[in-house]
Amino acid sequence: MRVLREIEELSLQEAGSQLHLLAAELYPVCRSISGDGLRATLAAIQERFPLQTVEIPTGTAVFDWIVPKEWNIRDAYIRRPGGPRLVDFQACNLHVLNYSAPVHATLPLSDLRPHLFTLPDRPDWIPYRTSYYERKWGFCLSHNQMLSLEDGDYEVCIDSSLEDGWLTYGECLLPGLSTDEILISCHVCHPSLANDNLSGLVVATFLAQALAEREHHYSYRFLFLPGTIGSITWLAHNPKAAGRIRHGLVLTCIGDAGGFHYKKSRQGNAEIDRAAAQVLRHCGEPAEILEFSPYGYDERQYCSPGFNLPVGCLMRSVWGKFPEYHTSADNLDFILPEQLARSLRVCAGILDVHENNRRYINLNPFCEPQLGRRNLYRSIGGDTPGIEIARLWLLNFSDGEHSLLDIAERSGLPFFEIADAATQLLESGLLAPNGQEVLK
Amino acid sequence: MRVLREIEELSLQEAGSQLHLLAAELYPVCRSISGDGLRATLAAIQERFPLQTVEIPTGTAVFDWIVPKEWNIRDAYIRRPGGPRLVDFQACNLHVLNYSAPVHATLPLSDLRPHLFTLPDRPDWIPYRTSYYERKWGFCLSHNQMLSLEDGDYEVCIDSSLEDGWLTYGECLLPGLSTDEILISCHVCHPSLANDNLSGLVVATFLAQALAEREHHYSYRFLFLPGTIGSITWLAHNPKAAGRIRHGLVLTCIGDAGGFHYKKSRQGNAEIDRAAAQVLRHCGEPAEILEFSPYGYDERQYCSPGFNLPVGCLMRSVWGKFPEYHTSADNLDFILPEQLARSLRVCAGILDVHENNRRYINLNPFCEPQLGRRNLYRSIGGDTPGIEIARLWLLNFSDGEHSLLDIAERSGLPFFEIADAATQLLESGLLAPNGQEVLK
Amino acid sequence: MRVLREIEELSLQEAGSQLHLLAAELYPVCRSISGDGLRATLAAIQERFPLQTVEIPTGTAVFDWIVPKEWNIRDAYIRRPGGPRLVDFQACNLHVLNYSAPVHATLPLSDLRPHLFTLPDRPDWIPYRTSYYERKWGFCLSHNQMLSLEDGDYEVCIDSSLEDGWLTYGECLLPGLSTDEILISCHVCHPSLANDNLSGLVVATFLAQALAEREHHYSYRFLFLPGTIGSITWLAHNPKAAGRIRHGLVLTCIGDAGGFHYKKSRQGNAEIDRAAAQVLRHCGEPAEILEFSPYGYDERQYCSPGFNLPVGCLMRSVWGKFPEYHTSADNLDFILPEQLARSLRVCAGILDVHENNRRYINLNPFCEPQLGRRNLYRSIGGDTPGIEIARLWLLNFSDGEHSLLDIAERSGLPFFEIADAATQLLESGLLAPNGQEVLK
Repeated sequence: MRVLREIEELSLQEAGSQLHLLAAELYPVCRSISGDGLRATLAAIQERFPLQTVEIPTGTAVFDWIVPKEWNIRDAYIRRPGGPRLVDFQACNLHVLNYSAPVHATLPLSDLRPHLFTLPDRPDWIPYRTSYYERKWGFCLSHNQMLSLEDGDYEVCIDSSLEDGWLTYGECLLPGLSTDEILISCHVCHPSLANDNLSGLVVATFLAQALAEREHHYSYRFLFLPGTIGSITWLAHNPKAAGRIRHGLVLTCIGDAGGFHYKKSRQGNAEIDRAAAQVLRHCGEPAEILEFSPYGYDERQYCSPGFNLPVGCLMRSVWGKFPEYHTSADNLDFILPEQLARSLRVCAGILDVHENNRRYINLNPFCEPQLGRRNLYRSIGGDTPGIEIARLWLLNFSDGEHSLLDIAERSGLPFFEIADAATQLLESGLLAPNGQEVLK
Repeated sequence: MRVLREIEELSLQEAGSQLHLLAAELYPVCRSISGDGLRATLAAIQERFPLQTVEIPTGTAVFDWIVPKEWNIRDAYIRRPGGPRLVDFQACNLHVLNYSAPVHATLPLSDLRPHLFTLPDRPDWIPYRTSYYERKWGFCLSHNQMLSLEDGDYEVCIDSSLEDGWLTYGECLLPGLSTDEILISCHVCHPSLANDNLSGLVVATFLAQALAEREHHYSYRFLFLPGTIGSITWLAHNPKAAGRIRHGLVLTCIGDAGGFHYKKSRQGNAEIDRAAAQVLRHCGEPAEILEFSPYGYDERQYCSPGFNLPVGCLMRSVWGKFPEYHTSADNLDFILPEQLARSLRVCAGILDVHENNRRYINLNPFCEPQLGRRNLYRSIGGDTPGIEIARLWLLNFSDGEHSLLDIAERSGLPFFEIADAATQLLESGLLAPNGQEVLK
Repeated sequence: MRVLREIEELSLQEAGSQLHLLAAELYPVCRSISGDGLRATLAAIQERFPLQTVEIPTGTAVFDWIVPKEWNIRDAYIRRPGGPRLVDFQACNLHVLNYSAPVHATLPLSDLRPHLFTLPDRPDWIPYRTSYYERKWGFCLSHNQMLSLEDGDYEVCIDSSLEDGWLTYGECLLPGLSTDEILISCHVCHPSLANDNLSGLVVATFLAQALAEREHHYSYRFLFLPGTIGSITWLAHNPKAAGRIRHGLVLTCIGDAGGFHYKKSRQGNAEIDRAAAQVLRHCGEPAEILEFSPYGYDERQYCSPGFNLPVGCLMRSVWGKFPEYHTSADNLDFILPEQLARSLRVCAGILDVHENNRRYINLNPFCEPQLGRRNLYRSIGGDTPGIEIARLWLLNFSDGEHSLLDIAERSGLPFFEIADAATQLLESGLLAPNGQEVLK
C-alpha cells in the first residue's frame, strides 16, 4: 500500500506553490543556533502538525560539546557618526556575523576592516558567516559596498545578547504499526537563506503533515534542529530512540534548479541508500549518487562511528558547489516551486519504498505457474511480452532471499511496478508473505 | 583431450551447407506444440542419431500446468464465397493462428477482422501468432493484403482438430564416463520459421551426432521440445535427471548474420556462464554477455527458483530485437550457412571447455622449475617471451585452487592454449592431477 | 614519522646527478649471471653501505635448478684473417652473446651467420642476447654491419671461460625495531644496459644508504642478484628470512622518460600493492597499475605459488614494450637524472607508507568532537571547509577497523595528509593507538 501515493501524484503547481508560500513566510526571520528567531520558526511549523519544542539549558554537556549561550539580536548597523545607516540589519539579517557578540563603538575604518566579511569574486552579494564557538563581532556586506567606504570614523552597533538561556529544537514522533523508526532531519538555524535550508524545512513539514493523517508501518521521527549542536544534543539525550532508527534522511538544498544528489550513509549499502538510488533512477530527472564523506550536514553526527546510523542526505545542488551557497543570492527566487514539489515527490517515493519493501515466497517454485489461465499473461503468443515481465521477475526471485527492492534493482524495473505485481500475485495465490518476517 | 576438435576445425562451407540443408528439409513442416508436424520433425532428426520420442497424454498434470489437447491441421483458407483462395495455408503455414480451433463459416468482413493478425509496420510480412491456452481461431496475413480486402462476405475454413492425444518431445542421453550431465535443449514447435528455431535444432542435431560417435567425460542429454510446456513436462517427469545437470545450454536464433549473445544462467557465475564467455571472447566474432532475465526460452523453466539449474542461452540476434522475429521474413534466406557453422563451432568449443576443465598441482611450487632443460623455454634469452607464457601461467596458478578455466580467465589467454600447455607439463612431470578430484 | 622525508624532499637535480653518476661508473662493466664483472659491480655498491657478498659454488642444487659454471671473459672479436677487428668486445660488451662458450676458429661467412644476432627492424642497434643454459657461442651486432659482411673467411675469437666457480650476489639486512622485513630486490646481471637494470640498482643503492643512517620500524633486506638464478638461490637458502617478508619491491627500468607502471604482487591486494597505488596516484606523474602476471623479473620467483610473497615490481616503461629494451640504445642517455630522482622519491614514499600505516581509535566516537576549541577547526563558519577535512575523515573511520591507508584510499586524500592529521589528533588526545596492534 503506497502510503504517500497522493503526495507522489500531487499536482506540481499546486504543491509547489504551497511549499514556496511557507518558505516565503519564514524567509525574513533571523534564525541562529538558538534564540527567538529559531523559536518563531518552530512555532510556524507547529501550526501544521503536532511538533514538540524541546529546550536544553545553556551549559548542558552533550558528548564532547557544551550547549552555548542563547543568542538574540534586536538591531545592528554601521554608519558615519550622525549619518544614515550604511549597513542595516533591518534591511537584511545576513549583514550581521551570525551569533555576533554585542558591540557599540566608533572606530576608524582601518580598525573596522578586520570585522568585515565580503565576497571579492561576487562583489554584489552579501556572504553568510558565523562565529558560534569563538566570541567575535562582525558584519557581512557586498564587496562593492566595502570598497565604497571612505576613510574616517564609523559608528558600529550590534544590539545582540549572548546569555544563559536555551538551545531549542523541534521534534515530532508519528507512531506507526512498528516501533522501528524512519528519521527525517533538517537544520533550521540559517537566517534569510532559501535553499540552505528553508527548502529542506518546508519539504519535511509537508511530509510530516501527510504522514500525520495516514496509517503507516514505520514510526516517523521528524527533527528540526540547529545544525551540528542540535543533532549532537538530540543524539546525546536520545540514545534509545537513535537505536530504533532503521532508515534516515537529512534534507537540504532541495529547491534549486539543479538535478538531484544523494549522499550515501556511512554504511554505504543500507536500505535507505538503495531506496534513494532506486527512486532517483526512475524519477525522470538527472540524479547522481555520492559516496559518504564525513563532512556536510547533520548526517556527520548520525554517521559518526559510535552511531553509524543508516542516514543519507538528499540534495539538489551540493552545498559549496553552487555560487549562491551561503550568500544573499540564495534567496526566494533561487528556489522554484515545482522543484520543491518534485523533491517532495521523491522523498515520498523513498519512504514508500521502505513502507512496501518485503520478501515473498513463490508457491510454485518449480517452473513458471500458468499465468494465462489466471488472466496474468497475454493470450495471443508470438508477440513480445509486456506487463507480465514484472510478474515473471517476481516469481523467479521470490525465493525468500530477495526483497522487492532486490528484485527491482536486478530487473531494472521501477520498484512500484514490482510492488504492484506482487499485489496481483498475492491475490492470485501465487505468492505468499515470507512467514519469517512480519515486515523486515 | 578435445572431444569435438574435428567439429571446431570443420570447414565452414562444408559444415554450413549440411546444416542449412537440414533446415531447408524441415522448413515446410507445420509444427506446433503437439501433433503430427512435431512428430515428423523428430522423425527426421531420428535418422541422424538415436533420438527417443516421448509421448505424454493430454490431461496429464505437470506442475501448475495440464498437457493440452493435441492439435492437427489439414487445410485452411479465406475466400469470397465460390471464389479462389485469398489466404491459403497450403502456400504458407504461418497464415493460420497456430493451435487455432476449427471453423468453417461465412461471415462479413467486419466480423472477420477481429480474427486477422497483421504487422502494420512491416506491411509485406506475415506475422506468426499462437493461441495455445485460450480457444480461438484466426488468420495471419500481410497488412497490405488485409487492406485490400473489400467489404462483403468471406468464407473462412480452418480444417484443424483439437482432441485428446499426446504431447510429443524428443530425448537422447549419450552416456559418458561420468553420470554428470550436460544439457542441450532447443524448442521445435515453430512452423516455417528458420532462425527461431530451426537454427537451434540443426546445430543441436549435429552436436548430438558428433558426440554419439566419440567418448566423452560427461553424459549429454539432448532435448527437442515444444517450448514452455515441453520443458515443464520434462522437468516434471525427470526430477532426478534434472539433478544431474551440471551445465546446460538452450540454443536458439543462432543462424542469422548478427554477432553472438549469451544470456547467463540465473546463477550468473556458473561454469557454463564462464565457459561461454571464455569461448566467445576468443571466437573472432562480436559477442555480448547478457545478464539473466526470467523471460526468453526454456531457460525460464530450467532456471525457475525451484530448479535453479546452470543453464544459459546462446543466441546470435536476440529474440524480439530483430524485425524478422516471428514473421515470414525469418525464412531460409535469413539464416546463413557459415553462420550456422560458426555457431556449431562455438557450441563445440564450450562443451570442450567443460570436458577439459580441471585443476592441477604444480609439483615444483617453490620458484619456477627450469623449463629450459626440458625444452619448454626458448634457449636464447633477452628476447620477449612467446609460447612459454601459457606454461608460466599454469605453473604459477596450479595450486589446487585454480582450474584451467580460472587460469584462462586470469591470463587472458584462450582456454586451449592453457589446456595444451597443461598436457605438455603433465608429460614433463611438472604438473599432476589434483588428487582430490576425478574431474571436478 | 616519515623515515625518508629527506629523500622524498631531495632536490631532483642534486639527487638525479648523484644517481646518474653511479650508473655511469658501472655502465662499462661486463656483467653476467656470474663472474668478475658481477663482483666488481657489488664492490662498487659496497663502498656506499655494508653490503655482504655471498658466493655459492657451481653445482649447488637450488630447488629445480643447479648453480651453473662461472663465466668470465677477457676479449672477443671478428675479423678477416690478419685484418682489423670488425666486431670488437672492447668497444661494446654487448657484442658477445652473454655467457658465450669460448671459441677461436676461422670459418666462412655461411658458417658464421647462425652465430650472429641482429635486429632487422632497428638496423643500427646491437641486440643483447644470452645463452645461459645451453652451451653456445655467438656475436651480436647491428643489422647494417651484418649486411656489409662480404663472403669469405672470418676469424672469430671469444676468449671466455666457463668453469667451476661461484654464483655471486649482494645482500644487506638493515635491522629495524621489528623483525618483519621489507624486501628491495634488483637484478645486476646485465652488461652495458642502463635502464634495465642500472636504474634499479642505483635507486636501490641510494635507498639502502639512506635507511642505513636512520631508525626505522621494519627491517630492510636489499638483494642485488643475478636475475632468476639469483633469486632462486637466495630463496632456496633463506626460507626463514623469506617468511619474514611483509612487503617487497623489485626495482627495474625506472630511469627512462616514461610514466610509472606498478605490477601487482600475485596476492593482488597486498599492502605493498595498495601503498604503491596510493603513492603513484598522488606523485604528479602518469602511472598505471598492472595486474600480476607470472613473467617479468624476479617477482616471478618471489610470487611462485609455494612462496606467494607480497612482492610487486616498480617500473617506468615496461620491459619488452619499449624499442630500446635489451639493445645498445638502452644506454646512459636513455636514463634521465631527474627521472631517476623521481623514482627514488616514489620508492621512499612507498616505504614511508608502510612505516606509518597503522590503525587508531577515535576516543570520541559518538558525534564529532569539538575541534574548534582545540584550534583544529576554522573559527568563521559558513565558508567551505579546508584542512579540517583530513581530520574529519580520520575521526570518522578510526574505529579500529580502518588503517591510515584504508582512510587515505576511501577519502581520496594523500596518505601523508591523513598521517599528519593523525599526529595532530594524537597530540590533542582525540585519537589513541589501537591497543591490539604494535604496528600491524
